[in-house]
Order: sequence, then structure tokens, then C-alpha cells
Amino acid sequence: MASLNIPDSNLERVVIIGCGFGGLNLAKKLDHNRYQVVMIDKHNYHTFQPLLYQVATAGLEPDSIAYPIRNIFRKVPNFYFRLAEAQEIDSDRKVLKCNIGELEFDHLVIATGSNTNYFGMENVEKLAMPMKTVPEALNLRSLILQNFEAASLSQDLKEREALMNFVIVGAGPTGTELAGALAELKSHVLPNDYPDLDFRRMSIHLVEMADKVLPPMSEFSSTKALQYLESLGVQVWLNTAVKEYNGKVVKTNKKDLPASTLIWAAGVSGNIIKGLKPDEDFKGGRYLVNEYNQIGEHQSIYALGDVAAMCSEAKPKGHPMLAQLAIQQGQNLAKNLNRSKQDKDWRKFQYKDMGTMATVGRNKAVAELYNKIMLKGFPGWAVWMLVHLISLVGFRNKLVTLMNWVINYFSYDRKIRLIIRPWKSKL
Amino acid sequence: MASLNIPDSNLERVVIIGCGFGGLNLAKKLDHNRYQVVMIDKHNYHTFQPLLYQVATAGLEPDSIAYPIRNIFRKVPNFYFRLAEAQEIDSDRKVLKCNIGELEFDHLVIATGSNTNYFGMENVEKLAMPMKTVPEALNLRSLILQNFEAASLSQDLKEREALMNFVIVGAGPTGTELAGALAELKSHVLPNDYPDLDFRRMSIHLVEMADKVLPPMSEFSSTKALQYLESLGVQVWLNTAVKEYNGKVVKTNKKDLPASTLIWAAGVSGNIIKGLKPDEDFKGGRYLVNEYNQIGEHQSIYALGDVAAMCSEAKPKGHPMLAQLAIQQGQNLAKNLNRSKQDKDWRKFQYKDMGTMATVGRNKAVAELYNKIMLKGFPGWAVWMLVHLISLVGFRNKLVTLMNWVINYFSYDRKIRLIIRPWKSKL
Repeated sequence: MASLNIPDSNLERVVIIGCGFGGLNLAKKLDHNRYQVVMIDKHNYHTFQPLLYQVATAGLEPDSIAYPIRNIFRKVPNFYFRLAEAQEIDSDRKVLKCNIGELEFDHLVIATGSNTNYFGMENVEKLAMPMKTVPEALNLRSLILQNFEAASLSQDLKEREALMNFVIVGAGPTGTELAGALAELKSHVLPNDYPDLDFRRMSIHLVEMADKVLPPMSEFSSTKALQYLESLGVQVWLNTAVKEYNGKVVKTNKKDLPASTLIWAAGVSGNIIKGLKPDEDFKGGRYLVNEYNQIGEHQSIYALGDVAAMCSEAKPKGHPMLAQLAIQQGQNLAKNLNRSKQDKDWRKFQYKDMGTMATVGRNKAVAELYNKIMLKGFPGWAVWMLVHLISLVGFRNKLVTLMNWVINYFSYDRKIRLIIRPWKSKL
Repeated sequence: MASLNIPDSNLERVVIIGCGFGGLNLAKKLDHNRYQVVMIDKHNYHTFQPLLYQVATAGLEPDSIAYPIRNIFRKVPNFYFRLAEAQEIDSDRKVLKCNIGELEFDHLVIATGSNTNYFGMENVEKLAMPMKTVPEALNLRSLILQNFEAASLSQDLKEREALMNFVIVGAGPTGTELAGALAELKSHVLPNDYPDLDFRRMSIHLVEMADKVLPPMSEFSSTKALQYLESLGVQVWLNTAVKEYNGKVVKTNKKDLPASTLIWAAGVSGNIIKGLKPDEDFKGGRYLVNEYNQIGEHQSIYALGDVAAMCSEAKPKGHPMLAQLAIQQGQNLAKNLNRSKQDKDWRKFQYKDMGTMATVGRNKAVAELYNKIMLKGFPGWAVWMLVHLISLVGFRNKLVTLMNWVINYFSYDRKIRLIIRPWKSKL
């Protein structure tokens, strides 16, 4: 059996699957002299998902929102990164099976996050564009631009219009921010690039099942965000559900929308790994965890963040899937594992809600801080930028992002409009 | 027949194939009130090829050395860009056939540049990595990093060593600069990322058929560059030719070099398009042009830059394939076409050699300015950086590149180490 080539150690081994917000913060806070930490990820970089939509809309380079994992943990003792895919958990033998071999663990932390959920609609899954990873965001950027190249060739008015129409499903923060960014491309950037196209024919539709945009936010923020979206020309369809898509027309329970591009930001489900017990250990596509993030009776198997459902009487479905929650759960689990080594009791997880925010466009954002301070307009937008800039990993990334934002702000432009699809490796 | 949807005009139409240095400068200088200009390119961006090697070695983002073509020509009247591939020239009908339709022309300019030439070695072509385009540079970056991920898994010492060995063929500026950049990754960056690997086992081989590195440069520069390469630990093999490659071992006329990665920077040949007359119009894989860049007897079909061989008694094989030459030929042809409209005679092309330069590493470069001033060390390096920075298209690109260079210089790091291979489009 192939191995992951991790040296033996007399320290307990913590295996972390996934270097998203949860896994990253757990691995950082663990006591590296008391535990051997093995991090597994399919990518060699941490992705700052909240800014993916700016990569998809030509505002930021992919390299400024992603950071190499090995660089984050350089010079950290007893830390090992392996570029690998987790395939199955054998809880009896305490072994994780990966595509490149088996790995024994003392503690296993599942921090695999979530993936796009198409609710069983096969055609939508085949034809819609997701936006959960850097390659997906780059693909979306290329597709948007290719559509306009194709539209400028087409003499069929109906085809041209479909190429210039975009339907975004899901008016959570991702869908709302993406719709706003596309609207800004429409008003400031694309008409200069494609002077022979009539941009009154470009439509951006935002489709949402709930009766408001940004469903998890307050009435104040939702109303304001809807105003912003409409002022930018986005057509918002509330109480509307997608039923079918054939690559040309999006069928909903209300109206058919012709569009070559359907962007799916509507639903996510946990990234589950084979193994464990379906009946006891799962709830709604996530791992059912207690307040210490432990899964069922497996004392030393944990789940964090999006993939974990920490249910209580107050929260029967668990916490919402938010970056902040994953960060705090990662930090709490790290502290608890460290407390074990100091013979101290574990502490239950308590969520400190620091607020939510979403930006629709230049000077147009809503922010709710600590559920008390409500901001909109320029102040909301400034706070949004500041929080995201601070949260980015790495000095270079912060600097490049800030610089791009300043240039984009003053030039009303988005310069990173390359259609790039690297070929597959020859090997 | 599909068309490229270019509006009719009473202006003469100049069709330019390729937005490299030649095509770009031609299109910029043409009188846009006297000619309708149609630019065709396979990519929607201009690539600054001299810095591709820094993309391949994680020093720069691809987005900072490429610039969207439509943005360069925004607001330019009578200019049309089409994302298309030229397939065949019909010189009798004055029509260019593309993958998306036919295009009539009054003047046709072939500025398609050059492509990697493997001199008929099929296995090398299949297994070696070229580095002429942005996607190729990104693929190379991913491959280099994947090799180290694989090496850290391997327990077979021989396999591990092959994964850590790199053979670069061709010690022109590209090969020399790439070898230097890899050597700097070896000494400053990779050992921090892969502490479990023994970097004394990593080798960088630079293989060159001629008897010196940087063959087109002076003895002074070649000697100095060789010294720099050796001081960085690059193993230089002069008078050495590659014979065969099987993915594991590079066979040369001298020694066999075990290496999983063969990077081919050895030869280029012109990107020829079907059509025209093989006997009269070609020379050594390039279009044979007169001093006005006209091909054979086709008065209004021209070739520029790498793809053109402007032969004279002094230069029986034509000029060398250099960015500068393409730029000057593009500018000269634009002036001549503009002179036609002013009833003035055309002027013959005269090459002003402003010098050549190559950088091997930090504070290590050679530069020959106007074939008189010879620079090395820090001054050569500073001039190299200045010239490349000035030549980059776009303010944002200059700024991001400068910033990356400053950060890389002081941190001894290369941060852009993401393994990214976007998936193919679903469509």
C-alpha cells in the first residue's frame, strides 16, 4: 500500500482534511510541539472564497485571493502538507484512505466545506456554472468574455441576446455580489470593449426562492440591497424557483428567461467523505456534531464549519454556513485539543456573531456589525473593503488587492479580462 | 458561409493576423481615419513574452504580463478585433479563411510570430514542456510544483531525484533566464516549502548546442552569464545536443541526464498559414519578404517579425527573431501604409539595434546597449528591469509587476505558487 510518507513521531497525530477557513485556523492554533499535524487538501492553496466573485468578474487576479498552504506553515515544526484527496474514513482502524495511500490518525478533523447543490436537477448540474473554487471562477470569467466575443460575431438577434443575458440563481451574498459586479461590467467596462453591441440588450437576472434578497440579513439590509441592485439595472425575481435549463432558456415557476449563461449560487451541501454511519452521524448532508465538534460516538473524529451541523434546540438545523463560523470552530477545537495536553476540561463552542455584510457595487454595500450597527452606502462599503482586506492571507495579497481596488475605483475599469484556459498537463 | 461580421466601409481594409509585438505596433501606428483595421488573434490578449519565464517560476501573475487587446484599442475608430484562428490565405480572391468565417482584405499582414520547433523529434514534442504562451507558462509552473509534491511522497530515491531534476534545452535569453530563476527557487524558496527533501539532490541542467551561452551576444556577455549561471549552481552543457527523451532520461550526444521535466527553449520556427506559394514565398520556415515586408509578388500581403525572413547579402538568413525587430518592422509598415495615403514613396526597413540583454538572477544580468555600452552585475540588472517595466503594456501591469519585483527582492520569496489548471469549459 502506498503511503503518504509522513515520518513516525511519538506525538499524537491530528489529520486535517481541507485548508479552508476552519482547517486553516485549527492548524494555526494547535500546539505544534504537542501534536503532529498532517494537512490534506486537493489544492495546494487556501482560497479566500468571499472574493471569488471578483475573480470571475475580472476585478482581481486569482493569485491575490489564494495563498500557498506550504508558505503559510513554513518553519512550523511537526507540520506536514500533502496534496491529496480524502476518499474513505475507516473509524475502527483509525485510518484515512486517500488517493495516494493510507494515513493513520489519532484525531481526524473533517473540514471539507461545502459544494454546489443542484437539488437533483441533472441538466442544471451539467450546464450551469458553479463558483466555489479558483478554477471555477476563472472558467466563469473566460465564459463571460467568450460570450461577448461570440455575440459580436452573431447576426441572429435572438442568439446574440441570449449570449448577452446572465441568470444568477440565489440571492445570498455570493449571488448578490456577483450580480452587482456584472452590472458594473455592463455599465462601465464592456461597452468600451464591444462598441458594435447594443448593451441595452444585456440583462442580468437574479433569481431567488425566498421573498427577499440576502435572506439571512435584516429587513433593513435586504430592502437596501434590493434598491441598489435595481438602481444598477439588475432584474430581481423573488419567490422564484428554477425548474429546468436546456443551455438556452432558464425555466422557472414564473417566467422563462433566455440566457446562454446560468450561474448557480443557490445551494450548497456538505462535502461528505465515505465512511462513518449514515444513520447516526449525518443530518441534512452534514456531519452531526456535538458542541465540541465531535461526530456521534467517535470521540476523536470531528467536523468543522460548513460540513458540520451543530444542532441545538435553538438551532435545530445547525448554524448557517459562514466563514466566520468555520474560523471560530477551528479555533475552539484547537484550544480544546491543546487543553487536553494541559489536563484541562474542554469548552463548548459558542458562536460570537460579529455580523454579516454584502457589497453590491461602488459605494453600495450593506453591513450589520454585531447585529447592532447597521451601515449602508459608502460607510458600509468602506467597512466591507477593510474587513476583507484584513482577512486576506499574506502581505503581498493584501497589497495587490488594495492596489487593484484603488485602480478599479478611479478608472471605472476591470483590467483582468484574459480568456485563459490552460491546457491539461501532457503527463 | 459564416462571416466575421465586420461592417462594410469605403476605407481600405488592413487585416492583421496576430497581436504580438509586430501586429500590436503596426495597428497602433496606422492612420485609423484612412484604414479600416481588423485584428485576428487566437487569444484575446497581447502577451509580453520576455517575462513569461517569471510566470513559470512563480514570480509574476499571468495577468500582469498580458493585456486585453480590446482594451488597448478602446475608442480607436474603424478598429475591429476578432477572437479567431487564421486558416488559409487565398491570395487570388484576397480572402483570409478563418475558423469562424471568411474575411476579405485589401492588405493582409501576417504577424503570427513563431512556435516551438522540436526539429522532428516526436517523443520530445510529446513529452517536453514549451513556454511560448501564457497557458504554457502556467502549465509549467504547475508541473514544477507538482513534481515537488510528488517527490515528497516518493520513497524511491532514484524517482525522487528525477522529479527534482530539470533539463532546459537552449541557452538563449529564455533558457538562460529560466535556468537562473529555477536556481533561485532552489536556493531561497523551495527548501522552506519542502523541508523533508534534500535540495542538494535538485539539479538544473542547461543544454546548448553552441559553444557558449547567449550565442547572439558578445564574448564578454556570454562569459559573464556563464559565470553567473555556475555561481547559482546551474550545470551548463555546451556543444551538447538532445537526441531523445522518454519522460525519464534525456539522452544527449554526451551524457544521459535523468529528469522528469524537459523544458524546450531551443528552437522556434515561423507560424506559417496555409496558402501562398511554397517555392517562391518561403525561406527556412519563414515568409521571404523584401525590405518593405512584402511577400514575393503579392504587393499587398506582408509578413512581420519572427515569421518574416528579410534576407540581404549581409543577412542571408534574415534578421534574428527578436521583439525589437518585430516592433520596428510593425512601425515601419504602418508608416509606409500611411505614406501611401499621402502619395509619398515607401521607405525601406532599416534595423536600429538598440541592444540585447539577459538576466540570470538578482543583481546578475548582462546588457549590451547600442552594441557599445556593456553592463553587468547590478547596473545590467537595473537596466534590464527598467527596460522591461517600461515596455509592459498598461499602467496597472507596470505597477503590479514593480510591486512583485520589490517584494520578491526583499523577501527572497516567490509567492505565486498555486497549482491551477482550470477545467475545460462545460460548453
